[in-house]
Amino acid sequence: MLTHTVEEGPLLNRFRTLWDEIAPIGRDPRSGGYLRYALTEPELRLREWFRTQADERGMPVTEDGNGNLFAWWGDPDAGDAVLTGSHFDSVPHGGAYDGPLGIVSAWLAVDELRAAGVTPSRPLVVAAFVEEEGARFGVPCLGSRLLTGQIDVERAGALRDAAGVSFAEALGARPTGGDPTLLGRFGTFVELHVEQGRALVEQDAPVAVATAIWPHGRWRFDVTGEGNHAGTTRMADRRDPMLTYAFTVLAANKEARLRDAHATVGRVTVEPNATNAIPSRVTGWLDARAAEPETLTGLVEAVHTKAVERARRDGTEITLTEESATPLVSFDNGLTDRLARLLDAPVLPTGAGHDAGVLAAHVPTAMLFVRNPTGVSHSPAESADDVDCAAGVAALARVLKELTR
Amino acid sequence: MLTHTVEEGPLLNRFRTLWDEIAPIGRDPRSGGYLRYALTEPELRLREWFRTQADERGMPVTEDGNGNLFAWWGDPDAGDAVLTGSHFDSVPHGGAYDGPLGIVSAWLAVDELRAAGVTPSRPLVVAAFVEEEGARFGVPCLGSRLLTGQIDVERAGALRDAAGVSFAEALGARPTGGDPTLLGRFGTFVELHVEQGRALVEQDAPVAVATAIWPHGRWRFDVTGEGNHAGTTRMADRRDPMLTYAFTVLAANKEARLRDAHATVGRVTVEPNATNAIPSRVTGWLDARAAEPETLTGLVEAVHTKAVERARRDGTEITLTEESATPLVSFDNGLTDRLARLLDAPVLPTGAGHDAGVLAAHVPTAMLFVRNPTGVSHSPAESADDVDCAAGVAALARVLKELTR
Repeated sequence: MLTHTVEEGPLLNRFRTLWDEIAPIGRDPRSGGYLRYALTEPELRLREWFRTQADERGMPVTEDGNGNLFAWWGDPDAGDAVLTGSHFDSVPHGGAYDGPLGIVSAWLAVDELRAAGVTPSRPLVVAAFVEEEGARFGVPCLGSRLLTGQIDVERAGALRDAAGVSFAEALGARPTGGDPTLLGRFGTFVELHVEQGRALVEQDAPVAVATAIWPHGRWRFDVTGEGNHAGTTRMADRRDPMLTYAFTVLAANKEARLRDAHATVGRVTVEPNATNAIPSRVTGWLDARAAEPETLTGLVEAVHTKAVERARRDGTEITLTEESATPLVSFDNGLTDRLARLLDAPVLPTGAGHDAGVLAAHVPTAMLFVRNPTGVSHSPAESADDVDCAAGVAALARVLKELTR
Repeated sequence: MLTHTVEEGPLLNRFRTLWDEIAPIGRDPRSGGYLRYALTEPELRLREWFRTQADERGMPVTEDGNGNLFAWWGDPDAGDAVLTGSHFDSVPHGGAYDGPLGIVSAWLAVDELRAAGVTPSRPLVVAAFVEEEGARFGVPCLGSRLLTGQIDVERAGALRDAAGVSFAEALGARPTGGDPTLLGRFGTFVELHVEQGRALVEQDAPVAVATAIWPHGRWRFDVTGEGNHAGTTRMADRRDPMLTYAFTVLAANKEARLRDAHATVGRVTVEPNATNAIPSRVTGWLDARAAEPETLTGLVEAVHTKAVERARRDGTEITLTEESATPLVSFDNGLTDRLARLLDAPVLPTGAGHDAGVLAAHVPTAMLFVRNPTGVSHSPAESADDVDCAAGVAALARVLKELTR
């Protein structure tokens, strides 16, 4: 088994040098996490850095009209290009690795190929996708969904951030949407990403190849009751939506455990959110994922049923609205097997959505994961060992070399 | 029994005229509720309106260095003054009556006395207290606590609103704190307030006299866990503070019901509050009240114990911090009895804190409540009938006339 161990050496140093260039950008000194929302100042600086990296390597950059950037090594018209890369944007106070590691690794892999004197037989493209997390405009993988025509252009352009700025305004133009010509130029997509779990720790390997992305989605639940004074309203007279909310949180957790699925309520808004006022409305967001679509459907239905029963008891009303849903994505079997053999790396599924999951319906796609010592992601505590990151670069370089032979 | 019914007539019209002057100030057109936070633009306009009302009645206004306003009919140095009034500030999207009704009624009661040719034997003072709700700086009854020396001046001045503005900055100077000389000038305080419950509906009376304010307080509970990716973190690996929070909300509700007490969690903040992130921290605020101090202590202890047990199960940590606590306030028995007999009005306790509760430790104090048809308060739906409001004015005028004979 190839363990991809990279001891102290040139590649490790090159990784550290390039990584340190972007490490300070958008970092919140208080939390240590990142505030790199799509098309805000820190992310725009990272996009500028992307263009500089491309220039230094003589790779012309094209933008697809949806906010996604592509840097080309080779003639775009040649077709059957090998695409690699990821995204810059973060969740609120997210980690350093989720996204940027795939882009930094792509540049270093290009350098590895050049240092080895490789001349690719197919164009090699480094990509930075926009708004992968959905943290600013609410729809994850917005850039790749636009490129592949999986979201309506009008709807995407009209999505607004918390300050009321629309995606079209942030982009400076209405997005252009699906681009079959550009998509048709890509023959393969390989996205490298930090692992967001601990499977590689348990398997004692620095790099894995992904097999599938669990079906997953986001459901908003709005609970309405009656706003009232916290001090004077008798318990029996209350219609308190916070109770229904709290019960729904616990029900989601229980139902997910029963099914070996994942359910999270990580976001809530309360009106008026005052200490001495019974809320009039509480809105929560349920993030649910499971290995099988039937399990996911059963989970969400069970949570909904229990929440409605509780709402009846609380004198409140609850509605559940699907905000996004992504079906099961199985990555290209032939490609996955080929890469796993090439790297002698373990294979594993993931519960996280990625641009690779969106592109997989259009382009043969694979993903590489780099070990995450704690499994923590979407948090300032997210981390990866430099040595593992360099091993990731070496693996990606080997894959690109193999694919462009 | 005197029902204080005021049919269509001059007082009702005068009430409507004066009430309509302030009704639009600070009203949010979307919710219909009020955003009258202390020392923000709408509340400053109301304070200016207060000065205009005082000028029109030839009553000089003094400010006590803590943000509280006093308009004097009679010589302050005479002492043994009868104080009446309330506050202008609201909770977020609060109702129109909580606070302002007491000030509007005070001006109209002065007019009633003057129309009746009364010359008070004691000074009569109309007051507007600052930051009664604690909605901007977090400490309820801040103005009256400062005046009575019940809060440290440095601490009060350093309290900050959500935008980081300190109370001292909003006030334009450091608060001056306890003022025994000024307090010593007040011989009686009578605060008129909209009822925040339905006792007067059930008793079919427009006005009541308060007997006591339940002991009550606010406790902040901080739950810390481990921020992580919602999609990829196995349920067994999670340390999700939202679960502990949700359990605590339900436990508080249950423990309050068991004790005939009141418990509310109406405010929560989540870090990072993202749909696809297990939170790293959830902070809730518990508002708890009970008729007896022992009941309140038992309630909070029971909630704490249950929350700590649950935190152990969730792998989280929870701390409970008392942010404010107000002991049982029994209003002046002699005064309360005298007013109840004078008005032939029912007497009742309340779960709500008021400036009257703070002043009661220093000045013989009573409260009048005006019927609230739905019992709803701290909400845009808070209401009172104009006829009942006019009956409140008539009752207050009668009380002031009696006290200043």
